[in-house]
Amino acid sequence: MAIAVDVMGGDLYPQNPIHGAIKAVNEKNIDVVLVGDESCIKKELDRHSFDSKKVEIVHATQVIAMDEPIASAMRSKRDSSMRVCFNLHKKKEVSGVVSAGSSGAMLAIGRFVLKTIPGIDRPCISALLPSIKDKKVLLVDAGANMDCSPQNLFQFAILGDVYMRHILSVENPAIGLLNIGSEEGKGDERSKHAYSLLKDSSLNFTGNIEGKDFFKGNSDVVVTDGFAGNVLLKSVQGAASYIKAVLEEEIKRSKRSLLGALLMKPAFRGLKKRSDYAEFGGAPLLGLRGNAIVCHGGSNPEALLFGINFAHWAAEAHLVERMEEKILEFQDTLSRIQG
Amino acid sequence: MAIAVDVMGGDLYPQNPIHGAIKAVNEKNIDVVLVGDESCIKKELDRHSFDSKKVEIVHATQVIAMDEPIASAMRSKRDSSMRVCFNLHKKKEVSGVVSAGSSGAMLAIGRFVLKTIPGIDRPCISALLPSIKDKKVLLVDAGANMDCSPQNLFQFAILGDVYMRHILSVENPAIGLLNIGSEEGKGDERSKHAYSLLKDSSLNFTGNIEGKDFFKGNSDVVVTDGFAGNVLLKSVQGAASYIKAVLEEEIKRSKRSLLGALLMKPAFRGLKKRSDYAEFGGAPLLGLRGNAIVCHGGSNPEALLFGINFAHWAAEAHLVERMEEKILEFQDTLSRIQG
Repeated sequence: MAIAVDVMGGDLYPQNPIHGAIKAVNEKNIDVVLVGDESCIKKELDRHSFDSKKVEIVHATQVIAMDEPIASAMRSKRDSSMRVCFNLHKKKEVSGVVSAGSSGAMLAIGRFVLKTIPGIDRPCISALLPSIKDKKVLLVDAGANMDCSPQNLFQFAILGDVYMRHILSVENPAIGLLNIGSEEGKGDERSKHAYSLLKDSSLNFTGNIEGKDFFKGNSDVVVTDGFAGNVLLKSVQGAASYIKAVLEEEIKRSKRSLLGALLMKPAFRGLKKRSDYAEFGGAPLLGLRGNAIVCHGGSNPEALLFGINFAHWAAEAHLVERMEEKILEFQDTLSRIQG
Repeated sequence: MAIAVDVMGGDLYPQNPIHGAIKAVNEKNIDVVLVGDESCIKKELDRHSFDSKKVEIVHATQVIAMDEPIASAMRSKRDSSMRVCFNLHKKKEVSGVVSAGSSGAMLAIGRFVLKTIPGIDRPCISALLPSIKDKKVLLVDAGANMDCSPQNLFQFAILGDVYMRHILSVENPAIGLLNIGSEEGKGDERSKHAYSLLKDSSLNFTGNIEGKDFFKGNSDVVVTDGFAGNVLLKSVQGAASYIKAVLEEEIKRSKRSLLGALLMKPAFRGLKKRSDYAEFGGAPLLGLRGNAIVCHGGSNPEALLFGINFAHWAAEAHLVERMEEKILEFQDTLSRIQG
């Protein structure tokens, strides 16, 4: 089944989403449904060559802006490209949804249209980050849910476990809890409570993990509240930009350094390639009854291709069914801890 | 008046704290009181030359280990070097305390011995971080206080404001609130409430600041709960280590890159120097009725010198009195919001 691509999302639409979708068709043999303004799409498609049997267009009259308040996007934009994507998924006409639009809107509309998997109170946004071991680390929640309960964190852990097993083929994912120290008993009340829930479960819980150890890659899944997850994700981006800017200034101080930087170009490119989390295919929304991926607003066609490919994998792997099964395994625990 | 230096704290004690203290004597003309095992100190002092009128030794029989539970350190180590430092400060025999020991123990003992400034419920640990503009940014709280109330955050903002005014001579410090988005109304309940307290106050509140913008240096003080502050601080350290490790691997892939890295050495050194937050003199504990600085456990003598110098500045600037005055200005607000 095809993947629906919201071509009206991201900083450079419809060009980048359409280009990414065509790459998915040509390079990965994935069928796509392009959702958005039909005339725009047709015009843009003229620039590409592809097997037309594998590309369908569905017209949508509205666009949700990146900074649009979610409530208004939900209420007054029932024919937005994003909403239409989810409607197609709900009707089982596509097997997944990909957008580079607003992640808040994706989550709200996804939740409204598809609902959550039974047993999951709040779906979360996950982010696949790099690590020194070149093993990917899944951060859940990466910024969707504020004021999470320890129970929410426990649910995120289950979702992360299933994702890493079935999409990244990690055998028995190591689950870490983001905290301010590695010993048991550290952190705020939420973390202490979540620690005990995880410790008492059959998940492969490996204890607390501090920010400084996140990128060592000892955990496959790192669980946290959306506030702390967002702080981690964005402060790391900020630190990388800082390092780049200061290093560029320092390089300009001497011709010797300038020459050195020139010779080091391949090494810098290698670092960028290994670190660029856009390359890892955007952020899967986990806990919905469907497969949805939000790509970064600045995603290039390559990043969108990855996102589409991930959505396709998730559908092929029957990820939602796998999550439903896993939640059933934990049914007793989940109903006990809700109490 | 002298600064008390806990010579039994940090990874390499008593060597580094004593070396740092002697540097403060010789390079900054600051008197010091070295607190710890007397025979150890005397032996170590033989390796240095200094004006003996400016160095005093106070014997303490106990040492608090870095990973020692704080409750036991408080209860059973009444003659620890750290506790003796604070006792000297309480008796006004020294004007400040510097240690590279456990920050949790510093805060607990400091609070127990010195008490907090009236109007301040919880003292905080602050961290001075670098920014692209080479302006320092003060993060409060950097990891001491879990489960903060919005009122705590408001108090941290006042403390940070006074610190930046009187120690770093920032005229009208811009106060930012760490959050997951820049617009008003973003974040968890605590952040939303703290936003309204800050906005309604006479502080120079400039709104929410996201992790990705922290290092741009648009705020002088960034206020947050100790959990998020610690996540920011440590994940940034982790990201820097990741970048260093991956770049080193990439460099080794070719002789050309190796040569480039060699030529770039001064630029890398410049980056390190500008980024190394240990160089900024450790973490001031704010809100205590006294001047206390915690240096990183791995501090070299230079970093300890900076810490001692900062404690000296704080005493010279009558920082505690300036904070007491500022709290008085906000007395009405503080008692109203406590309600």
